[in-house]
Amino acid sequence: MKDYQFRLDFEVRDHECDLAGVVNNAVYLHYLEHARNQFVKPHGVDFAAWAKRGIYFTVIRVELDYLYPPRSGDRFFVGVNAERISPLRLGFYQDIYRVPDNKPVLQAKVVLTAINEKGRPQLPKELDEMITKGLLSSSGEAPPAQAGE
Amino acid sequence: MKDYQFRLDFEVRDHECDLAGVVNNAVYLHYLEHARNQFVKPHGVDFAAWAKRGIYFTVIRVELDYLYPPRSGDRFFVGVNAERISPLRLGFYQDIYRVPDNKPVLQAKVVLTAINEKGRPQLPKELDEMITKGLLSSSGEAPPAQAGE
Amino acid sequence: MKDYQFRLDFEVRDHECDLAGVVNNAVYLHYLEHARNQFVKPHGVDFAAWAKRGIYFTVIRVELDYLYPPRSGDRFFVGVNAERISPLRLGFYQDIYRVPDNKPVLQAKVVLTAINEKGRPQLPKELDEMITKGLLSSSGEAPPAQAGE
Amino acid sequence: MKDYQFRLDFEVRDHECDLAGVVNNAVYLHYLEHARNQFVKPHGVDFAAWAKRGIYFTVIRVELDYLYPPRSGDRFFVGVNAERISPLRLGFYQDIYRVPDNKPVLQAKVVLTAINEKGRPQLPKELDEMITKGLLSSSGEAPPAQAGE
Repeated sequence: MKDYQFRLDFEVRDHECDLAGVVNNAVYLHYLEHARNQFVKPHGVDFAAWAKRGIYFTVIRVELDYLYPPRSGDRFFVGVNAERISPLRLGFYQDIYRVPDNKPVLQAKVVLTAINEKGRPQLPKELDEMITKGLLSSSGEAPPAQAGE
Repeated sequence: MKDYQFRLDFEVRDHECDLAGVVNNAVYLHYLEHARNQFVKPHGVDFAAWAKRGIYFTVIRVELDYLYPPRSGDRFFVGVNAERISPLRLGFYQDIYRVPDNKPVLQAKVVLTAINEKGRPQLPKELDEMITKGLLSSSGEAPPAQAGE
Repeated sequence: MKDYQFRLDFEVRDHECDLAGVVNNAVYLHYLEHARNQFVKPHGVDFAAWAKRGIYFTVIRVELDYLYPPRSGDRFFVGVNAERISPLRLGFYQDIYRVPDNKPVLQAKVVLTAINEKGRPQLPKELDEMITKGLLSSSGEAPPAQAGE
Repeated sequence: MKDYQFRLDFEVRDHECDLAGVVNNAVYLHYLEHARNQFVKPHGVDFAAWAKRGIYFTVIRVELDYLYPPRSGDRFFVGVNAERISPLRLGFYQDIYRVPDNKPVLQAKVVLTAINEKGRPQLPKELDEMITKGLLSSSGEAPPAQAGE
């Protein structure tokens, strides 16, 4: 298992499962979004607060590989690494593992940008600061391993 | 705009929009899933019915490019093309366009397989029949254009 | 079956069903919300547009009686009657019936108010106009029957 | 604030909020369902496991009073009391309070029954045992206060 800059623990809730008795394929995007939000919030990057100021974080590309479907009551964590992949785009590498056996559940790459009210991409300066602090890698290389959670 | 084997019309519902006032990034997977189901159902491929018999259609990979975010009340359609990309995997190419101006909203590739109760991939024979009828292309080539809904 | 001022047709989507194979108990509130929105929108009452102006329609009480659980693919309609139950509160009486056999699925009463940015209740004047036109009854009596959809 | 037999802590996730920037009215039913499940599970009452055996817990009536709308990032808890209100019906009294100021957010009464595969109500014996242990009051009286989580 890789090192992650951040991890967040979850438990599958009944209503997240569909007819097949497993987590619905769309629900993973909610898990990933919540993990990203919790990752950046302590660094002053509050997506909800920015939405009020007219800057919207927007997912522009997602790649998901579904490896194993968890069931209601299963515990899992989302591990997150992030990097700036271009001046205006952030890449989040987010993997899900079942707890406690670390069975791989999902691998994801999520690319975001931020759009201001004129529809122009604009990444807030707090993200620059996260990069300066080494919390978001500024190149395509693997970000430095840091303690989780 | 490409030709599609199938199209399904939708309208954005308020509860599908999030803080930013646009469709939440996870909700698109619900639109895509519903469009796939409606595409294959007239051909005897009812995912819900198969789930009862112990055969589960499972999304194994998703690629989504978000091009333009629709808002509550916006109408759009999902165009669907499908092909068998390996003996046990189906690829669905699903694009979303706003109605009536055909503004591109999303491009997606969704790969599915079916798993039986022993956890083994098993594509039901009704899907073979769809291929025989030319409704699912059996190669990597573009499927033949057919009239949509 | 009662007369309704408005009706809206739906079809159950796979992802709306949960482990038990039937529509999840929370999803009905989405159906009801969408039906209310579609009912009032042609009369100039657009909840999403008002949210942008700082007036939020807010559900303050819900009563739901679940009578019969629909399954994926089932078609149904939501019938809506509405009345002003106090100067600042609207009551929506919303019943769901399966199509085409009219089997009762759900009975609901939903009470709403509108809150302005100061947190004070404020019903927009377009709603007064709906009442003047007889589209929302102004008393506790049954509203006059009007053609649906 | 009342005493509760059980409480479960939550935090509002971004995707649970709608256009108005607050928790969508339907999402509360997911919070309440998850809290009920976590309440009864340690006592051998696993709704998901029972669904596999053909016994489905079914919500038959809900009353919700919405008191204050939480926003993304707000923490809250669901307090739960339960009683058997008839031989075949359970009543769950579930209140939501914001954390840490205990501001009342929602008051709910949720009535459930269990239906077997023949469509007949049938409450499993594990629930009788919860009543015997005093975890579900057997009358209309307030259940005895017990330590929460």
